[in-house]
Amino acid sequence: MSASRYTYLGPEGTFTEAALRTLPEAATRELIPMISVPAALDAVRTGDAAAALVPIENSVEGGVTATLDELALGEPLMIYREVLLPIAFALLVRPGTGLEDIKTVTGHPVAQPQVRRWLAANLPDAVWESSASNADGARQVQEGKIDGAFAGEFAAATYGLNPLVTDIHDAENAATRFVLVGRPARPAAPTGADKTSTVIWLGDDHPGALMELLQEYAVRGVNLLRIESRPTGEGIGRYCFSVDCEGHISDRRVGEALMGLKRVCPNVRFLGSYPRAGIGAGDVSPARPGTSDDDFTSAADWLNRSLDGRG
Amino acid sequence: MSASRYTYLGPEGTFTEAALRTLPEAATRELIPMISVPAALDAVRTGDAAAALVPIENSVEGGVTATLDELALGEPLMIYREVLLPIAFALLVRPGTGLEDIKTVTGHPVAQPQVRRWLAANLPDAVWESSASNADGARQVQEGKIDGAFAGEFAAATYGLNPLVTDIHDAENAATRFVLVGRPARPAAPTGADKTSTVIWLGDDHPGALMELLQEYAVRGVNLLRIESRPTGEGIGRYCFSVDCEGHISDRRVGEALMGLKRVCPNVRFLGSYPRAGIGAGDVSPARPGTSDDDFTSAADWLNRSLDGRG
Amino acid sequence: MSASRYTYLGPEGTFTEAALRTLPEAATRELIPMISVPAALDAVRTGDAAAALVPIENSVEGGVTATLDELALGEPLMIYREVLLPIAFALLVRPGTGLEDIKTVTGHPVAQPQVRRWLAANLPDAVWESSASNADGARQVQEGKIDGAFAGEFAAATYGLNPLVTDIHDAENAATRFVLVGRPARPAAPTGADKTSTVIWLGDDHPGALMELLQEYAVRGVNLLRIESRPTGEGIGRYCFSVDCEGHISDRRVGEALMGLKRVCPNVRFLGSYPRAGIGAGDVSPARPGTSDDDFTSAADWLNRSLDGRG
Amino acid sequence: MSASRYTYLGPEGTFTEAALRTLPEAATRELIPMISVPAALDAVRTGDAAAALVPIENSVEGGVTATLDELALGEPLMIYREVLLPIAFALLVRPGTGLEDIKTVTGHPVAQPQVRRWLAANLPDAVWESSASNADGARQVQEGKIDGAFAGEFAAATYGLNPLVTDIHDAENAATRFVLVGRPARPAAPTGADKTSTVIWLGDDHPGALMELLQEYAVRGVNLLRIESRPTGEGIGRYCFSVDCEGHISDRRVGEALMGLKRVCPNVRFLGSYPRAGIGAGDVSPARPGTSDDDFTSAADWLNRSLDGRG
Repeated sequence: MSASRYTYLGPEGTFTEAALRTLPEAATRELIPMISVPAALDAVRTGDAAAALVPIENSVEGGVTATLDELALGEPLMIYREVLLPIAFALLVRPGTGLEDIKTVTGHPVAQPQVRRWLAANLPDAVWESSASNADGARQVQEGKIDGAFAGEFAAATYGLNPLVTDIHDAENAATRFVLVGRPARPAAPTGADKTSTVIWLGDDHPGALMELLQEYAVRGVNLLRIESRPTGEGIGRYCFSVDCEGHISDRRVGEALMGLKRVCPNVRFLGSYPRAGIGAGDVSPARPGTSDDDFTSAADWLNRSLDGRG
Repeated sequence: MSASRYTYLGPEGTFTEAALRTLPEAATRELIPMISVPAALDAVRTGDAAAALVPIENSVEGGVTATLDELALGEPLMIYREVLLPIAFALLVRPGTGLEDIKTVTGHPVAQPQVRRWLAANLPDAVWESSASNADGARQVQEGKIDGAFAGEFAAATYGLNPLVTDIHDAENAATRFVLVGRPARPAAPTGADKTSTVIWLGDDHPGALMELLQEYAVRGVNLLRIESRPTGEGIGRYCFSVDCEGHISDRRVGEALMGLKRVCPNVRFLGSYPRAGIGAGDVSPARPGTSDDDFTSAADWLNRSLDGRG
Repeated sequence: MSASRYTYLGPEGTFTEAALRTLPEAATRELIPMISVPAALDAVRTGDAAAALVPIENSVEGGVTATLDELALGEPLMIYREVLLPIAFALLVRPGTGLEDIKTVTGHPVAQPQVRRWLAANLPDAVWESSASNADGARQVQEGKIDGAFAGEFAAATYGLNPLVTDIHDAENAATRFVLVGRPARPAAPTGADKTSTVIWLGDDHPGALMELLQEYAVRGVNLLRIESRPTGEGIGRYCFSVDCEGHISDRRVGEALMGLKRVCPNVRFLGSYPRAGIGAGDVSPARPGTSDDDFTSAADWLNRSLDGRG
Repeated sequence: MSASRYTYLGPEGTFTEAALRTLPEAATRELIPMISVPAALDAVRTGDAAAALVPIENSVEGGVTATLDELALGEPLMIYREVLLPIAFALLVRPGTGLEDIKTVTGHPVAQPQVRRWLAANLPDAVWESSASNADGARQVQEGKIDGAFAGEFAAATYGLNPLVTDIHDAENAATRFVLVGRPARPAAPTGADKTSTVIWLGDDHPGALMELLQEYAVRGVNLLRIESRPTGEGIGRYCFSVDCEGHISDRRVGEALMGLKRVCPNVRFLGSYPRAGIGAGDVSPARPGTSDDDFTSAADWLNRSLDGRG
C-alpha cells in the first residue's frame, strides 16, 4: 500500500538514504530507491508512494536544480519536513594507491577550502586540479587522470575506488539539506521554529522587481533564509526565485507577506511550511516588534474601530 | 441647536468664510466666526457646534500649525470635507498712495514669485523687501516703513489700508486648503477620489524610521499627497508626521497600510477619509496593479486555500 | 564697519539676544536688533552686517517658517553656527492679577504638556484654552479675554503684562534652536560632531520621490536629524524639503550623498556644515561600518586598480 | 605560443565549439577542447592558453555552476566577451527507432514547455517523464529505459543515439550564454551596450543584507541583468551572489555602485566589463535621468564649489 512507501534518490547507500533513516517514521515505511529526483517525485504524484526524500541544497555544490525545478515547474507537491546531514569528505583512490603515491588531487572548487588544512598537513606537495563536481572528480580518478578525489565516501563503490581516508572536513558546518515531499495537503501545525518555502515569478522585468519582492517580506519583518534564481525556460534573462523565509504560513506576518507577493507577482507557488532542522523554538531570533500575531490582531481591531468612528 | 451651527476661523469677511460658503449645507447653517482655530474647534468638542471650518494649508505660507497641532494633540476630532480656494493677492497701500508713489514693496518670500511678472510690468523699479508673513508686510505698510504690501484683499481693513490693485496672481494654482472638522464618527462613503489623513509618531529615532513609515504606504501602492513634520513638544529632534495619502480607509490597500503603521509606530491617529477637493473619480491615477480590493480578496482566498493544502 | 556688526531678531531682551550672547565673539561685536527675520538676513546680504542670529526651530511651536523660507528661497546665505537655548515659560498676567484670580489660562497646544504638572500643583481648577501661538495667548490676556498666558518671560513687556511666575517647564529638554547666518564662504573645518543643512526640491511628484531622497542618505550611512516640508509657492501639493543630516560636507559619505541628491533632484541648495550644539565629537554615534573616509579611499583605490586589471 | 591558443569546454562538436567559432579571432587561433570547465580555465591561469570559452548560463538548465564557482573562488580571471547561441532540441532515439515506436519521452523539466507544442502535434500519446538533465535523459534512452530524449543534437554521438528530429523549439528565445575568459587586464573600452560582472559576498547575514546590496545598484540607477546565489562552502545558509549589471566599470554610475558594494560587503570580485551579446548601443534603454557621466561631473563640480563657499 502506498501510504507505507517512501521513495528517495538512490541508489542505496547514499547520503539521501542516511538522511531518510534519521526520520522516526522511516522505521515503519518501505524505503524505495529511485534512479532520479524526478522519478522519486513522480512516484508521489501518481500515488505509488506517500512521500519522497530528495536533496535540495548542498553547502558545497549549491542548490540541487533537479529538485528545485521539479518543485517549481512540475505538478504541484509540498514539503513537509527537512533533514540536515553533515558533509564529510573521503579521499578516493584507485585500489592499490597509497598516500605516498598521490601527486594530484581533485574535487569541486568549493570543496577545496574544506580540505585545505588536511592537505597541508598530510599531502603538502599534492597539486590541486578543480573538477566540475565531486562525482566528476571521482570519474577522473577512475580514468587514471588524477590520483585522488575528494568526494562522499559513498561514491567510492560507484566508481570502483577505495576510500583511503574518511571523515575529512575542515569546516564544522558543511552539510546537505534534504526535503520530504508529499502531495499538497494542510501544512503541519507551527512549532515556533518553522520555515516557509515558495517559488515566485517576477513580472515584466523592470529593474526594481526583485527589490519589490524582498520588500514584501521586509516590511512585515519576515527574515529570508535562502533565495535562489532559476531560469523559467523562457529565454536568457527570465528567472523565477526559490525563496525560503522564517515562520509558518499561519503566522500573520508570513501570511500577509505571501498575500502581498501573490498580488504583485504574476505567479506564486506555496511549497509548504515545516519545522526548521537543527534549530529549536528557543533558538529562533525574536520577531521584530510589531509583527507578532497579537500585534496584527490589535491593529485589525483598531482599523475596525476607526472605520466605525471609534478609533 | 448645535447641529445647525458651524464655526469658522473669523473674523467675518476672511477667505475662510468664503470657503465655508462654497459648501451647499452652509446655506442652512448658522455660521459663527471664532477668534482662533482652537476656539473654533473647541466649540465642536463641547457640542456647541456641529462642525468647524479651519485653514490647514496654504500654498504660499505653508501648513497652518495651529490646525495641525490641534488635530494631532488635542481631544480627537475628524475631517469630513476639504475646500480649496484660489489665492489672489491685492497690493495694499496707505490711503492716498498711488502706483506712482510706490518705491518699496513687501510680502512673504514665497509670495514673490507669484507677483514677479505683475511687478515687472507695472512697478519695474520698486524694491522688494521680504517680510515674515503677508500680514506682517501689511503691518509694515501701516507703520509707514514700506509703501506697498502684497496680501489678501481682506487684510486691507484689518490694517487700515486700501487695496490699490486686486486679483494679482502670476501662478494659476496658488490656493489655500480648508478642512471641515467634526466629532469622530463613521467616515463618509468612498467616492473613488478620496484622501485619508493621519498623524504618525515615530518610535526610537533610529535613522531609518521615516523611511520605514513611507514603505508601509509604498509597499501597498498607496500614494502620498503631503507629509509634514511637527514637533511633539518633547524637545528638539522629536517629531510627529502629518500625512495625507490617496484613497479611503475602507480601501483594502489603505486599511492595510494603516494597520502596518499602527503595528510599527508607537502611535497613529486616524484623522478621517474624505473626498478630495478639485478632483473627480475620473481624474485619479489608476491604482497600481495588484492593489485593488479585488486583488486583496483574491490573495486572501489563495492564502486560505493554501492553509488548507489547496493553494 | 560691517565685520564688527551682528544683527539678530529683535527686539532687545528676547531669547534670540540671549542666545547670541552665548557666542564668545558676541562680546566684541556690535549687536543690532532687527524687526524681522528677513530684515536681519537682508542686512547680511547687503554687507551691512557680518552675520545674523535668527531662530530656526522651536521644540514647542515648530520650524520658524520665515527663517526656513528665507534660507530656501532668498538670495543665498550660509549657516556657520547653531545655538540651543532651553525653553522656560512664564505665566503672564495683567498687572494686579494674583494666582488666586486666575480662572482661565492659555498657550499654544504643544505648550500644554510642558506646564501640565505645574498647573496641577498650583492652579488645579484653572481652565485651559488653547491659542494659536504663545504670543497670541498673551494678546488675549492683554485684551482681558483670558486671565493668564504661558509664554516667554520676555513677551511680558510687549503686551504690558506681568510675569507672575517664571521658569516653568515640566520637560527638561524643551529648547529653541538658533542659527548664525553669513554670506556664502568656505565652511568651518569639521569637528567630528557636525551637521549639514540643505534644501531639496523634488522633481515631478511621482509617489516614490521622497523615499528616493531619503535613500541617497541611507545608502551612504548618513543619518538624518530633521526633515521639514515647505511649500514652494507653486500651488497646493508642491513642496521642497529642509533637511539636516549628521556629518560635514567634507566627509566623503556626506559629499557623496549630496552629489547623489544633486544628480536626481531638480535643485539642491547647500546651507552649510557647522558644529552641532550640545554634542561633542565623543558623543556622536560611530559611523556605520564601510562609511568612513578611509573606507571611501580604499574603495576608490580598488576601483582604480580594477580599471587597470589589477583589482 | 600561448597567445595563439584558445581552450574551450570540449569535446569537439559541442555547442561551445560552435559558439567559439562565431568569434572573428577564432579563425586565427588554435582551438583546444578540454575535458572540463576547470581544465579549460586552468590552461589560461598557467599561461598555456590566452583565453577560454566556457558556458555560464543556459536558459533551460540554469547557471553553469562549475563556471560560476571557478570565477568566484578560483585564482582570479576576467571575462572579456560573451556569446549567445540559440538552443534547439533534437529528439534522440536508439538506432532503428521510428516516430511510431515512441511511447515515452524524457528531458529536463524546463525543456518540457519548449517542446510541448511539437509533442502535441507529432506525438500526442507519448508519456513525458522528467529527467535530472537533458544528458541524463539521453543516457536513459541509451539504457533502453525510455524511447526518446530531447537534448542537443550534438549529444547524439556521445550516447550512441540518432537525432530523429532536429531543430525543435517552441520558444524563439531559448539560448545558452558563453563567456570568453582571460587573465586579469584592463577591460575593453566601453561600447555603449556593456555588461559588468561581479561576485559579492554578504557580511553577517542580517535580514536586510541582500536588499542593501541591491540598493547600491538601484540608488545609482544601474539596472541588474542577473543575480544568482552560490554557496560559499562555509555551511548551509552562507551564500555569495553572482551579479551582472548594465554598463561598464568606467561608467561613473557603475563605478560608484561598485565602490559602494566594496565598502559595505566583506568581499567583491570584479569579473569584467564587456559588450553585451545580441544588443547594440542603440537598443539599450536610456540611463535614468541624473545618472550619466555628465551628471556625475556636474555634481562633483557643484560639490567642489560648495566646499569652497561658491555652491
